[in-house]
Parts: sequence; C-alpha cells; structure tokens
Amino acid sequence: MKGLEELKLTCRTARPDGTVVEVGGVHIGGRDVVVMAGPCSVESEDQLLATARAVKQAGARILRGGAYKPRTSPYSFRGLHEEGLRLLAEARRVTGLPVVTEAMDTRHLEAVCACADMIQIGSRNMQNYTLLEEVGKLRLPVLLKRGLSATIEEFLMAAEYVASGGNEQIILCERGIRTFETATRNTLDLNAVPLLKRYTHFPVIVDPSHGTGIWWLVPHMARAAVAVGADGLLVEVHVNPQKALSDGDQSLRPEKFEQMMRDIRPFAQALGRSV
Amino acid sequence: MKGLEELKLTCRTARPDGTVVEVGGVHIGGRDVVVMAGPCSVESEDQLLATARAVKQAGARILRGGAYKPRTSPYSFRGLHEEGLRLLAEARRVTGLPVVTEAMDTRHLEAVCACADMIQIGSRNMQNYTLLEEVGKLRLPVLLKRGLSATIEEFLMAAEYVASGGNEQIILCERGIRTFETATRNTLDLNAVPLLKRYTHFPVIVDPSHGTGIWWLVPHMARAAVAVGADGLLVEVHVNPQKALSDGDQSLRPEKFEQMMRDIRPFAQALGRSV
Amino acid sequence: MKGLEELKLTCRTARPDGTVVEVGGVHIGGRDVVVMAGPCSVESEDQLLATARAVKQAGARILRGGAYKPRTSPYSFRGLHEEGLRLLAEARRVTGLPVVTEAMDTRHLEAVCACADMIQIGSRNMQNYTLLEEVGKLRLPVLLKRGLSATIEEFLMAAEYVASGGNEQIILCERGIRTFETATRNTLDLNAVPLLKRYTHFPVIVDPSHGTGIWWLVPHMARAAVAVGADGLLVEVHVNPQKALSDGDQSLRPEKFEQMMRDIRPFAQALGRSV
Amino acid sequence: MKGLEELKLTCRTARPDGTVVEVGGVHIGGRDVVVMAGPCSVESEDQLLATARAVKQAGARILRGGAYKPRTSPYSFRGLHEEGLRLLAEARRVTGLPVVTEAMDTRHLEAVCACADMIQIGSRNMQNYTLLEEVGKLRLPVLLKRGLSATIEEFLMAAEYVASGGNEQIILCERGIRTFETATRNTLDLNAVPLLKRYTHFPVIVDPSHGTGIWWLVPHMARAAVAVGADGLLVEVHVNPQKALSDGDQSLRPEKFEQMMRDIRPFAQALGRSV
Repeated sequence: MKGLEELKLTCRTARPDGTVVEVGGVHIGGRDVVVMAGPCSVESEDQLLATARAVKQAGARILRGGAYKPRTSPYSFRGLHEEGLRLLAEARRVTGLPVVTEAMDTRHLEAVCACADMIQIGSRNMQNYTLLEEVGKLRLPVLLKRGLSATIEEFLMAAEYVASGGNEQIILCERGIRTFETATRNTLDLNAVPLLKRYTHFPVIVDPSHGTGIWWLVPHMARAAVAVGADGLLVEVHVNPQKALSDGDQSLRPEKFEQMMRDIRPFAQALGRSV
Repeated sequence: MKGLEELKLTCRTARPDGTVVEVGGVHIGGRDVVVMAGPCSVESEDQLLATARAVKQAGARILRGGAYKPRTSPYSFRGLHEEGLRLLAEARRVTGLPVVTEAMDTRHLEAVCACADMIQIGSRNMQNYTLLEEVGKLRLPVLLKRGLSATIEEFLMAAEYVASGGNEQIILCERGIRTFETATRNTLDLNAVPLLKRYTHFPVIVDPSHGTGIWWLVPHMARAAVAVGADGLLVEVHVNPQKALSDGDQSLRPEKFEQMMRDIRPFAQALGRSV
Repeated sequence: MKGLEELKLTCRTARPDGTVVEVGGVHIGGRDVVVMAGPCSVESEDQLLATARAVKQAGARILRGGAYKPRTSPYSFRGLHEEGLRLLAEARRVTGLPVVTEAMDTRHLEAVCACADMIQIGSRNMQNYTLLEEVGKLRLPVLLKRGLSATIEEFLMAAEYVASGGNEQIILCERGIRTFETATRNTLDLNAVPLLKRYTHFPVIVDPSHGTGIWWLVPHMARAAVAVGADGLLVEVHVNPQKALSDGDQSLRPEKFEQMMRDIRPFAQALGRSV
Repeated sequence: MKGLEELKLTCRTARPDGTVVEVGGVHIGGRDVVVMAGPCSVESEDQLLATARAVKQAGARILRGGAYKPRTSPYSFRGLHEEGLRLLAEARRVTGLPVVTEAMDTRHLEAVCACADMIQIGSRNMQNYTLLEEVGKLRLPVLLKRGLSATIEEFLMAAEYVASGGNEQIILCERGIRTFETATRNTLDLNAVPLLKRYTHFPVIVDPSHGTGIWWLVPHMARAAVAVGADGLLVEVHVNPQKALSDGDQSLRPEKFEQMMRDIRPFAQALGRSV
C-alpha cells in the first residue's frame, strides 16, 4: 500500500505489541475474543432489557444498540434518539454491560458520551472527517466501522484522523463491502482482518450481521471470523426479529445467539484465546 | 427499482415537466447546458481570481471552489475554511459569477450560506443524513453529489431526505463510481444521467473531473455527458495544475477548458440546447 | 498502466495513425461511424430477414446475429447453430450486408469462417486464450468484446493474444462492466472509448444494448458513444422484442432503431464524421 | 436467488444428504477436510517431484499442478503442455497422490483425461459453455472454479451445465472475486462456502492462494475456510517461490505449508472433522 508512510500513529510499527482498548472494564485486543451484541435499534424498554439480559446470559460482554439510526429512506424508523440513549443507560445499570452506540453527527457527541462506554462511527460516516476530528478530541473509545466501499488504506487513514486528534482508543470493525454479488446484502471481507492486523496495532472486530444481512449466515461467518484472528464480534440479536423496526433479516433470536456463542468457543481455544 | 414508491417528492411523477433550479440568476434544468467551473480548492486570492476570470471568459456560468476539503489523509491540505469562503465571495463580487461550495458538516452551514449561492454536499456525505436534514431546512439550492458506491436508488433517496425537509431546489451530480478498474480514479457512469432523468424531475449534471481523475479524459467525457442529456457540467480548472494543492491531475488549464467549451457547443445544439 | 510495455503490437505507438479494419467492404476506424445491428439470436428465416431488411433500410452497414449463444442457464435457448449460420449467409445474400457472428469454441471456427465476414469473440470468452490463439491464425476480422470485469489492460492484452498470432484485423467493443448497480444489467463504461483509443491503434465500438440491458436507454447511450468518439455501434434490433428468445428487454423495434439512427447523425457530424 | 428453480440437478434438494466425490481413492465432501497442493505451474521434473514429496509429507492428499496455464499476457510462460501432463503422471506414480490439472479447451480434454484424476475448469472458463458441455460427457471428477465476477447463482448454473451433461462428480471452488480493493489480488469470499452448501449438494473447497494473491495471508484464510465449513483447500506450494515461473507471490514454501497443515487441524477438529 502506497499510503503507509502517512499512517504515522496508526501503523503497526508505532506500537508493535498491539493496543488493548478498555471499554467499561472489558479489554479488547488481548487474549479474549469479546462479543458485543444487542438489537440493531433500541425500540422500547422491554425489547432492550430482554435482549440485554439474554445476550449477557449467553456470554456477550458489551451491549450494542442504536439510538440514532442512519436509514436509506427518510421515511424509515430512525431511532428513539435521546430516549434511546436513556434506555441504553438503564440497560447498562440493570445488566452491568458496557454500552456501545452510534453517533451520526458532531452535535450528537455530547449526549452519546454521557451515556455510552464506546462511540460507534458507522460505515456511512467513515469519511465524515469533521466527525472523525471531533471524536479524536474525546477520551472515549471509538468503534470505527469500515465504509461500504472503503479500501484497507482508506480505512486506516480514517483511523489516523481520529488518532491524530489525540484519541488512540480505536477499534476497527469489518462489516461487509459492496460487490456485484446479490445473494447477500454485503460481502463480508474476512481478508481485512489479517491485513489490518499486519498494518496497524489497533484491535480488529467483525460484524457478521451487517456483513451478510442474512441471519443464518451469521454463525458461520462468526466461526470464520474467530478463526482468522478477529479480536471480537459485533452481532445483532432481537427477541422477535420478525417485528424488528430495522434489520430483522439479519438479527439472531437469543437462542440462536446462545448456540453461536457455544459454537465459536473451540475456534477461539484453537488459537489459545477464550470467549 | 423497488424503492420508487418511497420517492414521494423526488419521483418524476411528482413534477412531470421537470424542475428548473435557479442559482444566483442562472437556471439549471432548462434549455441551457450550464457549466460550473473553478479550482478544486481555493488556495489564494490570486489563484482564485485568475481562475474565476478565465472560466467566466470561456463561458462558465457558475464558479466552483472548495473552502472545506474532505481529504483521505488527515495530513493533506484541507482547505482555507472561513478565509476560503471570504475569497469566494470576493470572486463573485469581481466576476459576477454565482458560487457553489461544499459544506461538510452541519456546523459549516451558516458560514457557507452567508457566502454561497448553492451548497454542495460531497460524495462522501451523500448518506450523512443529519447534514441532509439540515440542508432540507434551508432555502438555498443544493448540489448533491452521488456517493462513490451509491446505487441510483440510494442517490434518489438521499435527494428525498433533502426534499422531505422542505427544500426542493436540488441538482443531482454524477461524479464517478468505484469499480474494479484501475486505469482511472473512478468510473464516470453516464448511464446515470438518463436513468435519473427518467425517475426524477430534478436537474442532473456531470462532473467529468472527479469522474475520471485524468485531465485529458475530461473533454471527451464532457462531450458525452452533453450528448446523453446532462443539464450541466462541473469542471475543475486551475491556472497551474502542477502546483495545485489538491486534484492537479484532473484539473484543466484555462486554455484547455476554453477548448472544451468550444467542443461541447455543437453537441448541445444537436439536442436543441445552448451552452 | 503497468503492462503497456507488453503490448508490442497493440499499443498506439505501433501504428500511430490508427488501423482501419475492412469487413466485407465496410471500413471501420475511419471517417464513418459504422452501425452494426440485428437480432441477439437468429431465430428463424422470417425473423432474420425482416430484421436485416429493416436495419439496412435504417442505415446499418453490417448485420449481427447469434447462431451460437452463450447462455447462463443450460436450459435457455442456445441458438440454431449451423442452421443459424446458413440463415445469416442467406440474409447477407438478400441484403448485401456483411455479417458478424460469434464463435464460442475453437471447433466452431471453420463453420463460422465459411459464413461470416467478421468473427465475434464474446465477453465470456475474452480470456479464452486457446480461442484467441486460433483466431489469431485466421485472416478474418475479429470483433473482440470486453470481458464483464476485465480491466482496460486485460482487454488490450487479449487483443495482443490475437495480434501476436498474426491477425491484426481487430475491433474492440465496450459492452458494459459489472458493478454494484442493480438498476441496469451492466454499467456501460464510455470512459473505455477514449482510454482505448489513446493506448491502442485498433478501432473501438460500443454495444449499448448489452451495456445497459434496457431498450429505452440504448438511444441515449448511443448518442453519448458517438460523441465520445466510438468508431461504431453494435445494436440489438428485433421485429418483436416481447417474443424474442433472448435479450428481448434490450432490443429495439425497427422503428425505434430508425429513430436512433436519425438521432445520432448530428453528433457524428459535430465530430466531422458521418453515419 | 431467482434462478434456483433452474438448478434441477445442482440444487440441494436433489440430494439432501450431499454428494461425496471420489478422486483417485480420496473422498471429498465427507468427514475429511482434503488438502490439494502443489505448484501453480509444472516447471520441471525436479521442481514437481520435490514439491509433490513435500506436500505429501505434510499431509496433502491430492497433487495440483498446471500444464496449460491461462496467462493475461501472451508473452508469459504458458505451461509445458503435454510434457507437463507427463510429469504429473510421473509424480503420481512416485508419490501415489492423485492429480488435478486444468484443461482450457475442448481439444485438451483427451490428453488431460489420460493423465489426471480430476479436471480443473479455471476461473476464466467458468462460462466457457462448450467446455462445460464436453466435461459433462466425461466420467472424471471436475473441479469447477468460480469466475472472477460470477455471482453465486451463475456459479451454480455453470455446475448445472456440467451436471446436465451427465457428469455429477463436481467440486466447487471459491477462489476470490474481483472487487475495488487493491491491497490484495482478489477478495477471497468465504461467504460463498455456507451459501453454496445451502443451495447445492456438491462439495465446496477454497483456494486461498489465488483468493488473496499474497502468501502470508494464505494460512490465515485457510484457517477461516476450514472454520466456515469448506470440504477442502487448494494451495499453491513451490520449493523456491522467488524463482517460480508463475504466481510466486502467492506460493508457500514447503515449511510454511507444513506449518499451515498443523495450524488448520484444531479448526477441523472443532467441527468434528479431520485433515
């Protein structure tokens, strides 16, 4: 890659031993493969708490849930906003799970920071440079998702934006790229995991839910993601996927998620890691 | 396309005769093919004024120039910001050309509105929905560029975001998509022009500079864009491309731009239009 | 492009003035923009003759028609084979139009050569190197179509295969590439025309029928293809598209084809060419 | 997928329990994960025998090696042809390993059949329908590689071509697709493995060498391929990659291959399989 010399803070050689990012007491990038799970959107107190309890029970270490939802159509459900953040804080209090949630705009940052243990920068905002700059000034960990058609080099350059602002608590997330294939929503690119881990010191996780868009593919790709060396997984779980207000097709029911957690353990162990 | 029924305000049937957008007295979407030209970035008063005078002389009707520049690397030149806006206002005063410039963040909108005749939403922000919503509340025309890997449907849905906010002064701009091809920076997709004009009533323009990334391809693709029915062109011109702080490879010198203007005229005339 | 130095016979510098290929008395690569038209598949004597007469009447100079059809499904109509070749020879006799038809396999070459004035190598066979080698030994012009995901460099290298066998009567045809876009069957890449014409001396034509897959887009893209400098067009015409055994969606009725021929003339004239 | 109903012989429901393909006494599609390894091209007796012995020693069950090589440039090494086939037969005699090698043309089939235990149809020929038809008439197993930009549906349709000819001894091979990414030669698409195994009864293997084009990525992607459920791997091994006449960048040295074989075992075991 030609742009490597511009990755001053992000390149592997800047920290050859790798970076471990702490999110509310959970360490990502170390020995453990950390699973983050929860609904695509926070829809209601009942939905969120039931899901949060179920994913914790199954072994998830961090709760995910969207309060601000980027949706292709302006007429789709776009999240509960502040009320969603309040419910996430409540779910954290009840379950003890740290929370990751997305901020879509510089103006959301203050409210998100007050509630979340980690800020997610979504795929569509990977090159929203003013947002990256502002997040670089924070002292909260950042979950940076790869853009839908971002090269590895562009992805690392987006991380460099955050790091150059002073915030080096960054976790990179592969979440599927856009290709010609129409059998899946996106093409989960597992090549990105070893490539990123060679070129940067930041932890790398995989989102098989968005990466495929198909719930039954999620456990298969989760196994492969662990085997290829991912430091964690980001998985959508919903207590009733058919009634989900967003992304129901790619959400696992709690019992399927529990099965997935059991399935991935031996693959983590084969690498000397635990889930 | 399956999403057509969600394009309530954007679909062709909402205004079968098409929309003409007025930008500082220039009408886009009518009989004229309107050329907007200028430097990628505003670099200095001399550079901007010399370029503005040259493009006006050659027949450009609107001046383009970036004050806020989205750049892949945080270490690249990112524009003169407020000073750049000031120089654009000065160039408008001197030449009489209306100005279009990009806003990258909701926080830029006030300053950009104070200076520009049209706000550009760049490719990387085509799905920055909070920015689209805010722009929807303005009463200034919006130049919305297609995302690098956005489908036609997603592009129209982004326009619907703006329109649903109340602002229906929208111009759509095809500016190249990401494909496997490596001989060009992007693949300019001229199929988008007749497709968009069939599905929506908004004017459609083409940016052959970003669309190819190669200066000598620009006049060829400009001719084709006019022939395929584009309502305008957005072209990068620089008085000294080799010293440009951004996008020099795709910028035309003033004399090449003048030649391009002469070249496209007969193609506009063949469609009963003028440049 | 890095591979240019391997394009010994194909590169522009090998014949700076360009190559004019003669096909049954028609010259391609010179002043005229040559339109080749006809049905996707030869289906019957009536269908072929009616179409051949109509396209000749409208100004087409070469008749196209498939006797061997590459189809994605083995259960689709795959052409009339030798009977199709016989009908093409008959149509040539009746109309005087030279004929281009596809060979899919080295074993077809003898029969195709006996009937056709030009051999087409289809998109799926652009990298069928044994076929390219055999075609290189012939003395019949070759219409080489770009592969669905072939880079410009790979396309030129395929031409070099043919040329290195001794056959330098090659016409290159852009016919759409595969991208993420789903609104069209393929994305017609008009950037390829000026790129190819800069890098090679062979004539370049455009197939807007396969390139888009949508009949109403064909005349728009035909205009743009002429404007961008194509030396010819390859267009599918069918007397009854709704009953076509293949590619009906992208075939023009004779009257629409006639209209297209009228529409492109002023664009050719604007470049000092005739149709 | 819309084309499923045309997959009469290929669809999963045609043989719900799956197909086990026997290649020279080795069973693919059963409990074992079968590794096929060897050089990209057969270059000499010494090179082939040394590599064959090394891969057998490390646990490979089938020997791969190319006698006919499809190369982008006509001036690249294109294989030893008949002499290459002779050397493969010799390597089989010496090591006892069954042999898989590519046929690029219907005219090669007789010679390849006389030497090989399985015929490979390469990526560039996945839609060479006359070749698929001829292979369908044989009684030798077929290793069918996915085309560079073939959808899952098109890949299955190519298998249907072979099966509809009467030959149902088919192994499907994912080998990387073409995307916008430039950090790797291709993007290995592991999503294809569970998708194919759901839609068809044929065994599915993965080629991480072509799939990535980078030797150090191969063991990582091999682990992931086993974890995601691949029935086998196809791996390029060369005794001296720096001197390889083709694909040296993606070839493993024997000692790295041996390490890879050790690495993948626990992942196979985690699925109740053995290598």
